[in-house]
Parts: sequence; structure tokens; C-alpha cells
Amino acid sequence: MFKEKLREKQQLVEKELHRILDIDEKPEIIYEAMRYSVFAGGKRLRPVLCLSSCELLGGDIKKALPVACAIELIHTYSLIHDDLPAMDNDDLRRGKPTNHKVYGEAIAILAGDGLLNLGYEVLVRHALEHPEDYERILKATNEIATASGCKGIIGGQVVDILSQNTELTYEELKFMHEHKTGALIEASVCAGAYIAGATEEEIHALREYARLIGFAFQIKDDILDVIGEEEKLGKKVGSDKEKGKFTFVNIFGLEKSQEMVVELTQNAIKILDRFGEKAEFLKELSNYLIERVN
Amino acid sequence: MFKEKLREKQQLVEKELHRILDIDEKPEIIYEAMRYSVFAGGKRLRPVLCLSSCELLGGDIKKALPVACAIELIHTYSLIHDDLPAMDNDDLRRGKPTNHKVYGEAIAILAGDGLLNLGYEVLVRHALEHPEDYERILKATNEIATASGCKGIIGGQVVDILSQNTELTYEELKFMHEHKTGALIEASVCAGAYIAGATEEEIHALREYARLIGFAFQIKDDILDVIGEEEKLGKKVGSDKEKGKFTFVNIFGLEKSQEMVVELTQNAIKILDRFGEKAEFLKELSNYLIERVN
Repeated sequence: MFKEKLREKQQLVEKELHRILDIDEKPEIIYEAMRYSVFAGGKRLRPVLCLSSCELLGGDIKKALPVACAIELIHTYSLIHDDLPAMDNDDLRRGKPTNHKVYGEAIAILAGDGLLNLGYEVLVRHALEHPEDYERILKATNEIATASGCKGIIGGQVVDILSQNTELTYEELKFMHEHKTGALIEASVCAGAYIAGATEEEIHALREYARLIGFAFQIKDDILDVIGEEEKLGKKVGSDKEKGKFTFVNIFGLEKSQEMVVELTQNAIKILDRFGEKAEFLKELSNYLIERVN
Repeated sequence: MFKEKLREKQQLVEKELHRILDIDEKPEIIYEAMRYSVFAGGKRLRPVLCLSSCELLGGDIKKALPVACAIELIHTYSLIHDDLPAMDNDDLRRGKPTNHKVYGEAIAILAGDGLLNLGYEVLVRHALEHPEDYERILKATNEIATASGCKGIIGGQVVDILSQNTELTYEELKFMHEHKTGALIEASVCAGAYIAGATEEEIHALREYARLIGFAFQIKDDILDVIGEEEKLGKKVGSDKEKGKFTFVNIFGLEKSQEMVVELTQNAIKILDRFGEKAEFLKELSNYLIERVN
């Protein structure tokens, strides 16, 4: 039942992403490169979170759909740029050659730029087309814009780049991940809530929920890099170590890290209790994130 | 008198850009890198065009100021990414070392990303803070977003990259520049007009004006690359040829190119006649662009 609902949401996102990226213009190569990375097999976690928090508050998920897709476009841009030779220099992502390996560095940089910009194009047009909801959409866009900028993803990536082959303190590592990964997960949940017309109290509770699962998500990522199955991960196990990346497993060890993931998720789920039955899907999704294998 | 008015507008933009970029947060290096390129001595042509077209229609230029600055942030991002080793591989821009020469490639890519994103942050916050003008601001933002994406700057840059060391037809060269440079000049003029509450007829006329000066601007750039003074240009004369770039001077020769700049500008100025006395500044600005030395 949960899996079915999850698949339903993922398919909604998939279809809308195809609609957005079905662009038959010149120069074709840039649209091809953008599609390559967007359709390289992502789990659509962020868009699903966005749709789910909208639904949780009784909102119309159709109105959250363009917002959810804009988030995925921005997330994909950040992956393309992270993989570049000047950054992490990754050859594989989700088991496939990275964007610059297929299209070259110049096009990969521009495909990333194009996806970031397209995310905003989608958001702005959505607001223009729905004047009755413009304030909700602008609040959602503001949330996403802050998370995508230097106070979010970009700031986190700068710290990541600067700290390679360095031992970090717990606070430094947390700062990095709260920015690099946590911020957009938080924005996904809050943006969906804004679309549903959330009160500031509801935003506050959902933001806290999102922070906890975002943190659990990152620790789980670090664990999978040590004990995951390469085939399912789509990349080499141990790649963090190879790249000189310091992780939560380095600080706490495997066992304690696994306990933390469970505890953070349980605390996150507790916050959802106030929303009653409607929170069922988001609760199951939170547990699903613990059990994931990639 | 014209020069004074121009300086006034440039100073307004300068002050607002400083306000926007006066960010004292971690990681400091990313904000420093962003400021480095934004304050590397640009002429602020696009923001001035935006303020001027707003003023032309009797709008409040204070309301156009954040929009004008967002355009300059986005323009600066495009320059940083254009200069990267994977793109034009330029060491100098406006007589100073390019961003990646000072901060390294990774930070330069991220500083570009940060400026593009910051442009949207500024636009979205401006709309949220001025609910009475949200529709005008959203229309301006939509104009800018289209010009900055694959149908504008990014598409033009892709063609530029793909066509190095290739002879282009007039149509191909025009396509490239209309996207790479023309689109954002057009968006600057139209965005300012939208902020003033322009009618669709006014937008239509100003768009035509902007296309003509945008085209003249690019031909003038190509001419300066052949006969400019290096000190004033801030880069080597003949750098287009060195980089295997095909230009309008290649197609038409110097004399005909210079005639075209004058004719395009005269036609552009004629369009402004319908706006009466209020168009005086924009007319003088158009002539100023012909006479520029950098």
C-alpha cells in the first residue's frame, strides 16, 4: 500500500519532468545533456517529500507538482556540478557515466546552469499562471532559493571542497551536511507545506521534522558508503575514503551511526503525530528512508 | 548633463549591489569570490537600461533597482562561467585576473552558481516584500529567467563553444549573439518597463528598440576587438582571432560593420520617438554605446 502510493507520486513527478524537459529547440545538445542527468534514475525523494507535505496539510498536490519538479531540477544541477573534474571528479553517478564524461566539461557546466535556471523558470511561470496562489508559490520559491544558494547547497559544497583530506569536528561536518543536503530536504518539505497554505506553526513543526530526517539521511548515506552493495549503490563502496572525505562513520563508528539514524527518524516521526492520520504516508516514507539500500 | 545622469544611475546600482553582497557569513571565501567579480569594474549597462526604461514610462526607479541588480548578478555569473578553462579559458577580464585565476576552478564555478541563484533570491524577495506589485515583478522575473536560460544566454554560449574555429554564416552568428548577449539586454529593457506597468504595446516597441541596440552592441564589440586600445579594453586586441572566434567583422569588414552600428542605433532611436521627451536619456545612452571605447 505504501509502496503503491510512493510509486504513484514518483510517476506524477516523472511525467511532469518529461513534460517540462520535452523541448525541441536548438541547440539540441544542451537539452539532451539536461535530460540525460534528470532521467538517470533518481529516487525523486525531494519531490515526493514536497508532494507529501502538501497532502499532509490537505493541499492540492497538483499545485505542488511544478514546485516539486523545480526542486528536482535544482537538485540535479547540483549533482552535475559536484561531479565535475574541478570538484569531486566523479566518473560514475547512479551506475552511469557522469554528465561531463558523456558531454564534456563545457556542456556539463552549462547543463547544470540550465537546470538551475529552468527550476526558477518553472517556479516563476507557475506563480504567473496562478495569481490566486501567488503568495504561496512565492513563499515556496523563497524557501527553495535560500536552500539552493550560499546559505544552503553552495555553501555546503564550498566547505566540502575546502575540507577534503581534512579531519573535521562533529560541528564542522554537521554544518557541511546541513547546508549541502539538509537545506534542500528542508525546503522540499516546507515548500509543499506553503503550497497547502501552512500556518507558521505548521511550518515550524515540519521544518523540525525535515531537519531530523535530513540528518538521518546523511548519516545513512555515510553508512551505505561503507557497507552498501555496489550494484545497488551505483558506485564503488568506500568512495568517501578514497576521495579523502570525512564522514559520520569516522566520528561515531558504524554501530553508533546506525543507532543515530533510527533515533533521529523516530524523533522525526513523533513530530508528525500532531497531524493525525494524514501523516501516515510521511511516517512510512521516513521509515523507508532508513531501510533504503541506495 | 547626460554623463551626470548616467553616473547617478550607475551609483544607485553600485550602492545597492554593495548592500546585497555585504554578507558576513561562512564560508567567507564564496562571498569574497562573488564580490570580486561583481566589483571588477563593469559598466552596469544592463542595470542602467533597466532603470532607464522604467523611468521612460514614468515608473519609480527605486522599485526597478533590485531587478536591475539581479540582472547584473546574473550577467556576472555568465562571465565567470564563460571565462572558465573548459569554456573560453580566459586569464583576464576587464584588465584583472579572471575569477578562477584568483580562486581556483571549483570556487569560480560555485561563485557563478551563487550569483545566478542570488539574482533569483533578490527577485523573489522583492516580489514577496511588494505584494502590491507582485504581478509586475513576476513578469519582469519571467523575462529575465527566459533570457538567462537555454533560450537565451546558455543556448548562445553552447553555440559559441561548439563553433570555435568554424566559419559561421551570418544567420548562425546572429543566432549566437541574439542568445548570448542580445537576450539579456532585451530582458533588461523589458523588465524595467514591466516594473513601470508597461502595456503590451509599449513592451513591443521597447523590445524592438532593445533588439536593435543589442545587435549594434555586439558588432561594436567585434570592432573594438580589432581596433580598440588594449589599455581601455582591459584585454588583448585580437583576442577573438586568437581564440578562433568568428565575428561580424569577418563577414562584413570593418567599414561596413561601423556603418551597421550607426544605422542600427539610428533605427533604435527612431522607435523611442513615440515616448516624447522622456526618452531623451535612453536616446543619449544609445549614442553613448556607439562611441564607447570598451
